[in-house]
Amino acid sequence: MTAPENFQRFLPLVEQGLRRALANGPDELLRASRYVLGWEDASGRPSSGGGKRLRPLICLEVAAAIGVAPERALPGAVAVELIHNFSLVHDDIQDGDAIRHGRPTAWKVIGQPQAINLGNFLYARGIGQLTDCSLPGAPAALRLLVDAIERMVEGQWSDIAFETAAQVTEQEYLAMVAGKTGALLGAAAGIGSALAGADTRSVEAFRRWGELLGLAFQVRDDYLGTWGDPDATGKSASSDIVRRKRTLPVVYALAAGETDALSAYYAEKNDGRSSGLTPEAVAEILATRGAREHTDALARRLAADADDALYTVAELGHDTTTLRALAAFIVERDR
Amino acid sequence: MTAPENFQRFLPLVEQGLRRALANGPDELLRASRYVLGWEDASGRPSSGGGKRLRPLICLEVAAAIGVAPERALPGAVAVELIHNFSLVHDDIQDGDAIRHGRPTAWKVIGQPQAINLGNFLYARGIGQLTDCSLPGAPAALRLLVDAIERMVEGQWSDIAFETAAQVTEQEYLAMVAGKTGALLGAAAGIGSALAGADTRSVEAFRRWGELLGLAFQVRDDYLGTWGDPDATGKSASSDIVRRKRTLPVVYALAAGETDALSAYYAEKNDGRSSGLTPEAVAEILATRGAREHTDALARRLAADADDALYTVAELGHDTTTLRALAAFIVERDR
Repeated sequence: MTAPENFQRFLPLVEQGLRRALANGPDELLRASRYVLGWEDASGRPSSGGGKRLRPLICLEVAAAIGVAPERALPGAVAVELIHNFSLVHDDIQDGDAIRHGRPTAWKVIGQPQAINLGNFLYARGIGQLTDCSLPGAPAALRLLVDAIERMVEGQWSDIAFETAAQVTEQEYLAMVAGKTGALLGAAAGIGSALAGADTRSVEAFRRWGELLGLAFQVRDDYLGTWGDPDATGKSASSDIVRRKRTLPVVYALAAGETDALSAYYAEKNDGRSSGLTPEAVAEILATRGAREHTDALARRLAADADDALYTVAELGHDTTTLRALAAFIVERDR
Repeated sequence: MTAPENFQRFLPLVEQGLRRALANGPDELLRASRYVLGWEDASGRPSSGGGKRLRPLICLEVAAAIGVAPERALPGAVAVELIHNFSLVHDDIQDGDAIRHGRPTAWKVIGQPQAINLGNFLYARGIGQLTDCSLPGAPAALRLLVDAIERMVEGQWSDIAFETAAQVTEQEYLAMVAGKTGALLGAAAGIGSALAGADTRSVEAFRRWGELLGLAFQVRDDYLGTWGDPDATGKSASSDIVRRKRTLPVVYALAAGETDALSAYYAEKNDGRSSGLTPEAVAEILATRGAREHTDALARRLAADADDALYTVAELGHDTTTLRALAAFIVERDR
């Protein structure tokens, strides 16, 4: 599936806003920020390779759906992207991940202590976008953002706790994802509407849509990380399996709680020791236990839930045409 | 020197506000927060042993000096204490410190990944105190807080960078301290006045006083960490020397940039290898080079600067009697 032709129409605005937000400040923190945002390589030379800017694009599309100039919601769009990047920088330290977007992670470049600082700096800059905003909707937007950060942190806490948990239920897993991924996507949509001047009910409807979209997005991501086409995803096949990530398919396949080759594989530290299972064999076991079908079906159901939430938005009088196309692109992508 | 009898008069209010701010939320993050605040030990039993609550007490004393009920500034007092604790939790990870306030640091109890989350949670809760506050001064207070956090992070970045720097000037060192310690004390005083309804000029005067007080406090702390009376400080003598902290006396004594026994001592990793110098010998060399006298004089000069800043506050019509006694206690303490 290809992007709707206008899916990235506000990307230049987002980039401009981000660059403006990171134009002033301490040299070394700004330099490290430019690396994380994908504008420079580790030696400071111009490059490309940041993220998809999904959250700020959603924020601006929501403002456009309400009928205001997207520039109005730009402080919110920039805020959610900076907060997203703060969380990525810290997550990579916590998970010990060495690569993101095909480049060394921040802590690999500047060390763990300074990467903690870098995350904290992006965190403050993100909040600062909305404390400096004088729109009537700014206080509500700020509360949405801070609530989302708390839920994100709670989700990340659970994610780490799951690594050593004896058993994780699908319900616990989805609650974790709702915090870790859903909360900030929900905030992106809610903040876009708040800054656009929407009423409280509309803001909550947009927020709820964004959160469900985030859930659907993550479960689809879990599917693609196990059975995605390496040519389309740009990662090696079953990359999540190699990293022993406890994704939805794994949670599902281990739900019976039996001790067997699969549970042994996921109990192993990712230290090169072998349980005798190749990643391909693990993917095969997961599929045999119905995890592939189940994950695909769950991603579709969550996408349908998000779609339903968009009907609520439409009933409140907002034009949802572009948002529906955007949502379909996000959850039906193959990469 | 003993505390002015009423120095801790608002402490019960501060503790009440902190407990209310941490009454609701995710169980495990709240539990870890209670440990950090000193209310519980690692197994969840009631204990005492948190910090001095210096920042929230300053915040409330400023409100009282302006003549409003201290309760009015309580959200700000709670906010600065939560932000202070977020920074301590992250600093201890960054520095690898195992003990604070005589107890294992948070990362020693819950591990580094979850301690990063804990810091991020306290960070969000701190900001949240002011986003939920409807006083007219709340937006200004929030901007003061976010600015202070950015400067704190910048100061912490410099502090870490100094560990491997060939040379650190006294000016660079004091700029680092102004960010790492001065900014949040300044914010505590500024926020207290903003929530109390003070005008912009008064808020800036209070903020400036708090920042200078923070500088004086830290330089005095550097002195006590090297030459303090172990009986009074509760730490072993020259504890900063053992940890090879590049405090003001060290920066001063190494300013000539010569390669000698002292520079060799501070170039060593804190790994038990010996340069042949005992901590006592290092303290002696520092004193011989005039670092003891210089540090003492600088702490006094900064305290006098803070005192001058308080005259500006008085000229703007505020009662500074209690604040002056409080400041004297803070910078003339022997522990």
